[in-house]
Amino acid sequence: MRSTVGWQVDGSSSTLRRTPLERRDLRPDDLAVRVDYCGVCHSDVHAVSSLSAASAGNGGNGGNGGNGGNGEGGKPLVPGHEFTGVVTEAGSAVTRFAAGDPVAVGNIVDSCDECAMCRAGQENFCHAFPTLTYDGVDRHDGSTTLGGYSREYVVRDRFAHPLPAGLDPAAAAPLLCAGITVWEPLHALGVGPGTRVAVAGLGGLGHLAVKIAVALGADTSVVSRSPGKADDARRLGAHGLVVSTDPDQMTDARDRFDVVIDTISAPHDLGPYLRLVAMDGTLSHLGHLGPVTVETTDLLVGRKKLSSAGSGGRLATAAMLDFCAEHGITADIEVLPSARVNEALDRLRRNEVRYRFVLDMSDLD
Amino acid sequence: MRSTVGWQVDGSSSTLRRTPLERRDLRPDDLAVRVDYCGVCHSDVHAVSSLSAASAGNGGNGGNGGNGGNGEGGKPLVPGHEFTGVVTEAGSAVTRFAAGDPVAVGNIVDSCDECAMCRAGQENFCHAFPTLTYDGVDRHDGSTTLGGYSREYVVRDRFAHPLPAGLDPAAAAPLLCAGITVWEPLHALGVGPGTRVAVAGLGGLGHLAVKIAVALGADTSVVSRSPGKADDARRLGAHGLVVSTDPDQMTDARDRFDVVIDTISAPHDLGPYLRLVAMDGTLSHLGHLGPVTVETTDLLVGRKKLSSAGSGGRLATAAMLDFCAEHGITADIEVLPSARVNEALDRLRRNEVRYRFVLDMSDLD
Repeated sequence: MRSTVGWQVDGSSSTLRRTPLERRDLRPDDLAVRVDYCGVCHSDVHAVSSLSAASAGNGGNGGNGGNGGNGEGGKPLVPGHEFTGVVTEAGSAVTRFAAGDPVAVGNIVDSCDECAMCRAGQENFCHAFPTLTYDGVDRHDGSTTLGGYSREYVVRDRFAHPLPAGLDPAAAAPLLCAGITVWEPLHALGVGPGTRVAVAGLGGLGHLAVKIAVALGADTSVVSRSPGKADDARRLGAHGLVVSTDPDQMTDARDRFDVVIDTISAPHDLGPYLRLVAMDGTLSHLGHLGPVTVETTDLLVGRKKLSSAGSGGRLATAAMLDFCAEHGITADIEVLPSARVNEALDRLRRNEVRYRFVLDMSDLD
Repeated sequence: MRSTVGWQVDGSSSTLRRTPLERRDLRPDDLAVRVDYCGVCHSDVHAVSSLSAASAGNGGNGGNGGNGGNGEGGKPLVPGHEFTGVVTEAGSAVTRFAAGDPVAVGNIVDSCDECAMCRAGQENFCHAFPTLTYDGVDRHDGSTTLGGYSREYVVRDRFAHPLPAGLDPAAAAPLLCAGITVWEPLHALGVGPGTRVAVAGLGGLGHLAVKIAVALGADTSVVSRSPGKADDARRLGAHGLVVSTDPDQMTDARDRFDVVIDTISAPHDLGPYLRLVAMDGTLSHLGHLGPVTVETTDLLVGRKKLSSAGSGGRLATAAMLDFCAEHGITADIEVLPSARVNEALDRLRRNEVRYRFVLDMSDLD
């Protein structure tokens, strides 16, 4: 096994602690990657919270469950699924990469290769379920994957992407999850010149959706609760702002957008956002997983569609990275030394970031 | 006012009773129509049940609310919104129709004419809400509309459609609601030669969806709980049957259909039906109104879309009627004298009809 170090939460609390980690010895098609920058995604917050909640429930007793458990409630977790770094070693069968190559890795690190989805380059929809970058199950040794909040990651070469020249490695890291998640629906829905796009929610996903939609030539607006986002929206290239707390503005915007990209991370009523969708248009719901409830009439009236998206396959990820390199698109980030990971998670819980935290892993050396 | 007679429920029970009715004197753009045949739609069952439930709640007291109320709970209701008949008189400004013309009327009898949806010929999505054929509010005199379970209907000429020659007037009546409801998504989703269509539920909507999809050239399958529907499916022209209660068949059918038309009238889990949808395909949920809940991942995996539909605008209705005339498509019906309306509603509640009841109104003379 290979030794490295990372930021791990064991379920006894929601605090990540610096911990020695093991990585597997390289298989023939593996790369060892020195992780330089790892983005902090809302999924990471959820995963950490879920683990500590589960542990509290299992480990505590009836009277003081709220004090947290003893760590037996869940497997230790190392989050992180959007990172960039440099190849340090390549397995014997690897031909695409060599030591020294800059690479980027997203939230999928393996898939079955054989199902219709994998054959179509949509490994994110693998019928046998893709191996997630953290808290996934390795298809060969059954181990639990540990994520990119660490100094080294070992990844199957197919799931590493060359990082295009010209993209800042820190600011590019969030492209691998937030970027591909918004790219997928924008691309699948044919967004281009003349398409009227609204982006609801201006966070990690939303600000990249605005940049990419604008670069695709779409007439792009931001929908936000706060009129104070007008300057930010404009700076990101948006052509308009709809303030969702202003009923008049929401009424004026009714049926006005061919595509609404809903990146709001908290569960919310989709009705007001579906009403912004133009006839035969689509609302793509990206902000959170879990069940969503819609009124049939909100779809029926105007023959609207509801879709969702999350991450992307290898082909789409490569296309997204090329597009972003061509248009100079990266995330707006705040870089923190990885030792401040707990602060980053806390502030992300309060949405206090414009627009993505990226951890600098060099302090782990 | 004009006098006619129809089948009305007053809320004191769910039994429709033969009742004298008034129709308005003709406005310049009105037609008087002798109703010959009126289809019995699931909506009619719901409307009757809702009225009697509301009356029971209002009229009863705490202890015996279940005995039914005193009729004060709701306005009297005359259902019926898919009918055919003959023009008996035309208003002074009417040029499209004359006495003696065969016509068909659906579930919309007026709209604002001015909003973007009306201007686009999608009066069913009128921003000011279309006037429904029954239990709607007349835009001019504020009266409550009374439906087609009657011998005469007075309708604005724009919302009457010439009944194409060659379509049996009884079997064509259901086209005006069930037919247009399935036509809309099939048309909007571009169903044609080579499209793989699954129709879930083989009732009034479903059997017409099969006929129309087949006539559009689609590779059409039926999804039904019952293996006994195989012969029916084949007779309607379907190329395959997926038995939804057979897990193996449902697994084999995963990701196999570009379009799933879900006509199941009871609330149900959409997950199994979304999993039949192919990548980038759409499930159109038609069977009932109200909220629907979907798991985001059922949309996300395969980038699938959820839509809905209900009735259609004037242009689509005319196109659907032309298409059905060209392809000889009408509903499979069981005609009952209108005096047996309560039996029809009871049997429809139990889905005991293949596939649509049509009331013959001539017994009201």
